[in-house]
Amino acid sequence: MGEFEYIRWLRQRTPAGPKVLLGPGDDTAILAPCPQPMLVTTDMLLQGSHFRLEETSPRQVGRKAMAVNLSDIAAMAGRPLAAVVSVGLPRKNTEALAEELYLGLRDVADAFATAIVGGDTNTWNGPLVISVTLLGEAPVQGAVTRAGAKPGDWLLVTGTLGGSILGKHLEFTPRVREAQLLLAEAPLHALIDVSDGLAADVNHICEESGCGAVLRAEAIPISEAARRMGDGRTPLDHALADGEDFELVLALAAADARRLLQAQPLPQVTLAHIGECIAEPGLFLEANQQRRPLAPCGYVHPFG
Amino acid sequence: MGEFEYIRWLRQRTPAGPKVLLGPGDDTAILAPCPQPMLVTTDMLLQGSHFRLEETSPRQVGRKAMAVNLSDIAAMAGRPLAAVVSVGLPRKNTEALAEELYLGLRDVADAFATAIVGGDTNTWNGPLVISVTLLGEAPVQGAVTRAGAKPGDWLLVTGTLGGSILGKHLEFTPRVREAQLLLAEAPLHALIDVSDGLAADVNHICEESGCGAVLRAEAIPISEAARRMGDGRTPLDHALADGEDFELVLALAAADARRLLQAQPLPQVTLAHIGECIAEPGLFLEANQQRRPLAPCGYVHPFG
Repeated sequence: MGEFEYIRWLRQRTPAGPKVLLGPGDDTAILAPCPQPMLVTTDMLLQGSHFRLEETSPRQVGRKAMAVNLSDIAAMAGRPLAAVVSVGLPRKNTEALAEELYLGLRDVADAFATAIVGGDTNTWNGPLVISVTLLGEAPVQGAVTRAGAKPGDWLLVTGTLGGSILGKHLEFTPRVREAQLLLAEAPLHALIDVSDGLAADVNHICEESGCGAVLRAEAIPISEAARRMGDGRTPLDHALADGEDFELVLALAAADARRLLQAQPLPQVTLAHIGECIAEPGLFLEANQQRRPLAPCGYVHPFG
Repeated sequence: MGEFEYIRWLRQRTPAGPKVLLGPGDDTAILAPCPQPMLVTTDMLLQGSHFRLEETSPRQVGRKAMAVNLSDIAAMAGRPLAAVVSVGLPRKNTEALAEELYLGLRDVADAFATAIVGGDTNTWNGPLVISVTLLGEAPVQGAVTRAGAKPGDWLLVTGTLGGSILGKHLEFTPRVREAQLLLAEAPLHALIDVSDGLAADVNHICEESGCGAVLRAEAIPISEAARRMGDGRTPLDHALADGEDFELVLALAAADARRLLQAQPLPQVTLAHIGECIAEPGLFLEANQQRRPLAPCGYVHPFG
């Protein structure tokens, strides 16, 4: 499938909608004016670095390439609008690979009403590379950044954490709807998706918000996968340090947090209270009523 | 330079402006609401396929990666707003390579008031790959697509064509300002940038507009580089077939075209009248008052 045939193929599959004035095939796509601020994010997946085609099907690669970008829009409590996709395809089985890749992209894009409006398709002598850029619109309340957490805020997390390498990193559901539901229920002070690992991502909130945080070991929701890792590290270690769970961490006023924990407003996803923001800078883990420094990589400093 | 350091470095260099509400460093960038329709385009450059680092400096690669996207915005008569950049960096000389690449991106982005608002920086075992997505705003008159040419329209081209491989393909100026100036002077029916080659790109206009076109051999503005190619093909062949000149081809009413040709409103860039749109489908070349079919690849069919 050459570039022109691919554009034709894609055009037939791009739903016309009020938000897409012009889809693939011209020099640029055209989107309808958006009354809200526009969110922009991009993520690239590289064969051998982010996935191996021996273990991961091209369709799964396509799904993940779209889903990681949707997770970034979710992490602002935004609504996805449209995506463009650039690929470098290896010369072996190029056509089948391209088709599976795009079916995967479309699986996830369709599930979140996201139009694929353009792209750049190349064949080369290198490994498979795919880059997705996703545009979204900010919620009317304003996008929720990492920067608004305050001392006294409670930290909540969706779902369970750890061991995503056993499968969830490929098959996760980006928390787009959950973020919108949560924002409709309460003002969110800060929001992030767990891509680098819980400790690292809570640390991002702290750095951007100018505060610290205490996580409570007993309260971290540990996934079944984290318990199955069996590599000598504890399930809690995995929940603190593993990346790519793509759950949401939110900081919000304690009273609002109590209300959300009581109401559990998310279908099929449990909200857990994992800690609090504090004025003192740094990241801490509390276990058995004792507080120890926690490195952003998830490492718990032993008592000195 | 790891990803976090790179984000810090980029943040310091991203100009705050009324159009960028949040630059690099959060889950997404945030752009101010745009009253005009939004233009979106993406282009990927791959080492060994689009460039060789033995011949092309990383700074030139960065410049070209930004410039080809700007040329697509120019081809809609749009105004560039903001870009995101994904890169896969080889493990050799990674830091120097990344810095030169971004300096090249910034050279061109700065010249066109385009903010780099985000990206995804990766290191891998593969060759250098860079993907830029550029957002722009449509002009108040509406974006100029490939689809509006009418029989009787004149076809004009900016600058000279052919032989861009000798240097222009790396050092061209995207015709962003020229497209805006032309649109301010006259209604443009169709517009495209010469990336695939003059014949191919005029053919794109014909296909999208549902018309044909005649080009006049004597009128094609042939570049010095096309004359220097010395590979047995004529300079006219090069001007018709070579890609990556990134000049503009426009279709507009004959009376408007005559006026623009007389006024020559573009500083330092000459407008030339290269042919007309016709009702009969297909692409033709006229030379010595004889008309022959012209293949979209630039091949002139002999009499037969």
